[in-house]
Amino acid sequence: MTNDTWIAVDWGTSHLRAWHMAQDRVLAEAASDAGMSALGRADFEAALLALIAGWLDGPTDVLACGMVGSRQGWQEAPYSAVPCAPLGAAPVRAHATDPRLRVHIVPGLKQVRPADVMRGEETQVAGFLARNPGWDGVVCLPGTHTKWAHVSAGEVVSFQTFMTGELYFTLARHSVLRHSLTEAGWDAEAFADGLKDGMARPERLAARLFGLRAADLLENASPEATRARLSGLLIGAELVAARPYWLGQQVALVGAAKVTGPYKNALDQQAVPVQIADGADMVRAGLKVAHDSLKETA
Amino acid sequence: MTNDTWIAVDWGTSHLRAWHMAQDRVLAEAASDAGMSALGRADFEAALLALIAGWLDGPTDVLACGMVGSRQGWQEAPYSAVPCAPLGAAPVRAHATDPRLRVHIVPGLKQVRPADVMRGEETQVAGFLARNPGWDGVVCLPGTHTKWAHVSAGEVVSFQTFMTGELYFTLARHSVLRHSLTEAGWDAEAFADGLKDGMARPERLAARLFGLRAADLLENASPEATRARLSGLLIGAELVAARPYWLGQQVALVGAAKVTGPYKNALDQQAVPVQIADGADMVRAGLKVAHDSLKETA
Repeated sequence: MTNDTWIAVDWGTSHLRAWHMAQDRVLAEAASDAGMSALGRADFEAALLALIAGWLDGPTDVLACGMVGSRQGWQEAPYSAVPCAPLGAAPVRAHATDPRLRVHIVPGLKQVRPADVMRGEETQVAGFLARNPGWDGVVCLPGTHTKWAHVSAGEVVSFQTFMTGELYFTLARHSVLRHSLTEAGWDAEAFADGLKDGMARPERLAARLFGLRAADLLENASPEATRARLSGLLIGAELVAARPYWLGQQVALVGAAKVTGPYKNALDQQAVPVQIADGADMVRAGLKVAHDSLKETA
Repeated sequence: MTNDTWIAVDWGTSHLRAWHMAQDRVLAEAASDAGMSALGRADFEAALLALIAGWLDGPTDVLACGMVGSRQGWQEAPYSAVPCAPLGAAPVRAHATDPRLRVHIVPGLKQVRPADVMRGEETQVAGFLARNPGWDGVVCLPGTHTKWAHVSAGEVVSFQTFMTGELYFTLARHSVLRHSLTEAGWDAEAFADGLKDGMARPERLAARLFGLRAADLLENASPEATRARLSGLLIGAELVAARPYWLGQQVALVGAAKVTGPYKNALDQQAVPVQIADGADMVRAGLKVAHDSLKETA
């Protein structure tokens, strides 16, 4: 007999989040820092059970997306090639020794030319389309590796990844700029200035970055202003390069409020029509689509 | 009675190098990783003596440049504002308890608008001018924070710093790219490709960076090619932004061979006349100028 609840898992490089679900209703949730990069292949089952064992009272479907399906993950789920539906191929079964676990991993997407990949965001796109049937446009998923995906007729037609979030964090934590900015606080005017500069002269990024340090030393720029200006410079340069994705398009921003906020602000200034969807909601909605597909093919 | 030898010291954020000098002849050299960032104010004298105590047989002039003169250094040597001679102000005396040490720290340079600073490179520029009297043009000092300095009539007229080297190292060591590149090895063709792409579409940097990762995953790009392409992309974007510094100018590249090499290659392709000078030679030549200036004012 099958339990009629199921478990949704978002398993990235540095995080693990799980939700105990009844259809599309959240019964419970849990998270840990047992991301893919912290685990060997033999550790995945234990890391998952550490979060969800209390939810299991019989064989239960676990639907997972993200880096857990990479070559270094629990079980490789080979990329589907775009153009294709965001959940272009069936989930891949991962071996578990606990008989209560029936683990299915959603494949990521790849693009051959220019070479690009995603794992996890395809599930959010699928969730967004499930909530917005027939939607055509561009889905932007800001984050460590921001994705812009052109969606038409239920398929991801093309996509492009920008390392904007990772540039921000590696610079903020590991470069000389770590002395000049905070991890919290925000200066809206400094963000707007950085955005304007980043869009006007994106090639000057490396000079503007050192300029943040010099402005701290010579002008006592505030750490909040430096942080916001850095974000503006990076997002500004990204918007210039991503222009073919947003110009004349309707854009859906999918993510947590703290990452979608600056992009919304920037796209508003370009008069781009933007709607916002919560990233965790879309993960669960996408995994629900994947879970439903299991039943159809069973 | 004064010892007629002297000591040249290049003291940066992460390194300390010292040379025992007789005029401009090197008698001995020593280095450690006791950079400014590793030291509290009270630790500088001991860190220096650990390297040079064996060279001291009486009161000896020590001429030092670099971050040792910053606010967090041994003794702040306030910036001189450009336009000015590279050694625009007299060295600042730093207090030492050992009576054999007569420590003088060379001030750095600042530019008010756009805000910019240098500490250490001004000494290399002074050394280059001492070796090339009457030289006018642009001195480029590639490194963690690459400097382009416009030099005319013996003065630094303006300069601009690019965080290119630090971008390279933070990405290579702390981003997802660390899985895809080596710390050694070189692929000249991949460098040329990256340079071309970086110059043609510098705004695409954040996308090209993730493209390096995707090319590794999908096309098994070699770690040597990824490393060289990363360098090409970053230097290409820098050259676009620094064009006012090199277009129609004669350029002197000052630094270690491993950092000047890629810039020479890139500037050659732009038909820019380039001469090269060794960075450590120029540090010693510049500190010799500063040492000579002490005697003149004594």
